[in-house]
Amino acid sequence: MIMKPIKLIQGSVTAPSGFSAAGCHVGIKKKRPDMALLVSDQPATAAGVFTTNQVNAAPVKLCREHVKYACKGILVNSGNANACTGQQGMQDARDMAVAAAEALSCKPENVLVCSTGTIGVMLPMDTVKAGIPKVAAELQYDAGEIFAKAIMTTDAYAKHAACELDIDGTTIRIGIAAKGAGMIEPNMATMLAYITTDAQVDVESLHSCLKHAVDKSFNRISVDGDQSTNDTVLFLANGAAGGPALSTDHPGWGDFCSAVEQLCMDMAIKIVADGEGATKCVRVEVHGARNDEDARTVARTVARSLLVKTSWFGCDPNWGRVIDAVGYSGAEIDENKVDIGYDDCQAVLNGMRSSTPLSELETVLKQDSFTLKINLNLGQGSWFIYGCDCGYEYVRINSEYTT
Amino acid sequence: MIMKPIKLIQGSVTAPSGFSAAGCHVGIKKKRPDMALLVSDQPATAAGVFTTNQVNAAPVKLCREHVKYACKGILVNSGNANACTGQQGMQDARDMAVAAAEALSCKPENVLVCSTGTIGVMLPMDTVKAGIPKVAAELQYDAGEIFAKAIMTTDAYAKHAACELDIDGTTIRIGIAAKGAGMIEPNMATMLAYITTDAQVDVESLHSCLKHAVDKSFNRISVDGDQSTNDTVLFLANGAAGGPALSTDHPGWGDFCSAVEQLCMDMAIKIVADGEGATKCVRVEVHGARNDEDARTVARTVARSLLVKTSWFGCDPNWGRVIDAVGYSGAEIDENKVDIGYDDCQAVLNGMRSSTPLSELETVLKQDSFTLKINLNLGQGSWFIYGCDCGYEYVRINSEYTT
Repeated sequence: MIMKPIKLIQGSVTAPSGFSAAGCHVGIKKKRPDMALLVSDQPATAAGVFTTNQVNAAPVKLCREHVKYACKGILVNSGNANACTGQQGMQDARDMAVAAAEALSCKPENVLVCSTGTIGVMLPMDTVKAGIPKVAAELQYDAGEIFAKAIMTTDAYAKHAACELDIDGTTIRIGIAAKGAGMIEPNMATMLAYITTDAQVDVESLHSCLKHAVDKSFNRISVDGDQSTNDTVLFLANGAAGGPALSTDHPGWGDFCSAVEQLCMDMAIKIVADGEGATKCVRVEVHGARNDEDARTVARTVARSLLVKTSWFGCDPNWGRVIDAVGYSGAEIDENKVDIGYDDCQAVLNGMRSSTPLSELETVLKQDSFTLKINLNLGQGSWFIYGCDCGYEYVRINSEYTT
Repeated sequence: MIMKPIKLIQGSVTAPSGFSAAGCHVGIKKKRPDMALLVSDQPATAAGVFTTNQVNAAPVKLCREHVKYACKGILVNSGNANACTGQQGMQDARDMAVAAAEALSCKPENVLVCSTGTIGVMLPMDTVKAGIPKVAAELQYDAGEIFAKAIMTTDAYAKHAACELDIDGTTIRIGIAAKGAGMIEPNMATMLAYITTDAQVDVESLHSCLKHAVDKSFNRISVDGDQSTNDTVLFLANGAAGGPALSTDHPGWGDFCSAVEQLCMDMAIKIVADGEGATKCVRVEVHGARNDEDARTVARTVARSLLVKTSWFGCDPNWGRVIDAVGYSGAEIDENKVDIGYDDCQAVLNGMRSSTPLSELETVLKQDSFTLKINLNLGQGSWFIYGCDCGYEYVRINSEYTT
């Protein structure tokens, strides 16, 4: 599907009207910013999508409860994941919501809380509680980029974007900020993303829009195949732009959802490209599968294969490793029908080496990004995901740190 | 289950009576041995277990046909996998069997053929055909270790073992030779293993014994989570020792199967320890799962996790990555019941950090081998597998080669 291009604007989660943000260092980490706050002037409609990991952090559990209510603000700490922390961790997450609610003059259930960092260590709650009024005192209407920086962990750069679109003559804005996947010191990293809009959207429609966008973007990336205990994507709609109430049956709904999806995809690709130690971002496209589920299985298996990922790092058009992964993926295949190409260069035709000179394939592999195309030639199923390579830097980052 | 210790003897696949072997360089590779032959004086009962990869090599397809017949000999070439080679590759595998049959004065269906090496390149059949009489001329009754060396690819050392046991007053012998898993230059490596015995065993019993032993050994190792197109384990029984005909209802059957299983496990652990670039061999034990299948899922997910493997390389008792993998494995778990330990040091109790000092855990992780124990505390299901770490050397081997 070709989507209508969006009109990008400067800014981040505070680009839409009525949102303020802040970020600062309160002492959970040694030096870098470790607390961020995002606030809506008027309580906003909220929707959330969370990790499906059966081991999930206390703040994820709390968000699942609180996301049912209107949201005044989102409090994020980095440096400590508040995961595997039992009853005490749950109480700590609740206490964070209580302290933030006090600072924002709302009820605790109107606050969403996220944590990212070390697993299995209790939060330093004195530090956290002392930090909350401090970060709240720094709220600004143009601090979206400060927020995006404060949620970073090992991300090399802040990830944010914003766009505007016209719906029924009203200009509405959408902003997004995200932090990366892949492992971080000292423990599990987390994919966190926050989307804001000044459109007015009912809660069911907002959730449906978010779910769709996440399925098409954040669920289409693979850095190391591991899923964090804290992955969270939240979407707030505060209606501050005025204009029509949007819902699934509004004529502008498609454009709105498309814009959200494109912003999410922009963040997703940046997360992969900024994957720890990654030197390449590879789009793995699977076509001709018996169904979409099979195509997804093949795409994920190939993008997760350590042998494939190391061959990408070596700029090696090693299609043998690709077809091997296709073969053990579990999807239905016929090895004599499999085609494999890198960008527009055919590498495999009917399960056998094509006549394309190796040097041409190598030229594609030497790029920072390329598309690996796999056609099973069995049906109409298709899928794509974005993956990255695995090189020395990945090993260094993930092995040299000792807790 | 505690198994009866086996009586190890010197030797390899030619330790049992009536087996001869050879290995030499015929020119598929530049310098190193690239052809091996294993022959039974009298046609032997044969059983085989093969890769379940839907993409599988021509010799695997041929073996599946020929293993139904009595086996006179097994011909192995290294340097070329004869995989993804279409109809021509199938014909080449058949021609190898024909040429070997000629040299051994038997029918082609009495020959089994294995290949390992580059995927997607046609075998140099003139070289192969010229080499077969050469290797056949070098057959010797004590050349089992030469055979074990000739099937090596990037293995650091030859892997073989032999044992003997008394059944009804007759001494019977079992020999084994194997080559390693993990990637090799330039393409997909293959796990190959050959077992010989001079016991007399009927074909159904032999297959049942082999299947059980492989499930308990070679199917319990994970080097990089990728499954080759050529994996093959073959078992020949020639009856040369005389003595009773063994079958599943013979009183000595349990001892026989136990000996085969222990030899296979010895090879499997050597394959993991010799995994490309591996510095550690880790036994991942899962207990207390709802059932064995869930335990297996958890064990495989943990042993395959790139984040877990890099933490092992870094000697980092990073149980957060372990419990994270447990959580996304798909097996039923309750995060508040999960216990994790390294050897006898408890790291996690009821899903939370235990009081064991970090230094004690680190001491365990610094060993060349240790056991990671995961207890889900939900039921009676258990499983174990052997995995290895992932470090710089793995990345170097698998990325620096360019086809």
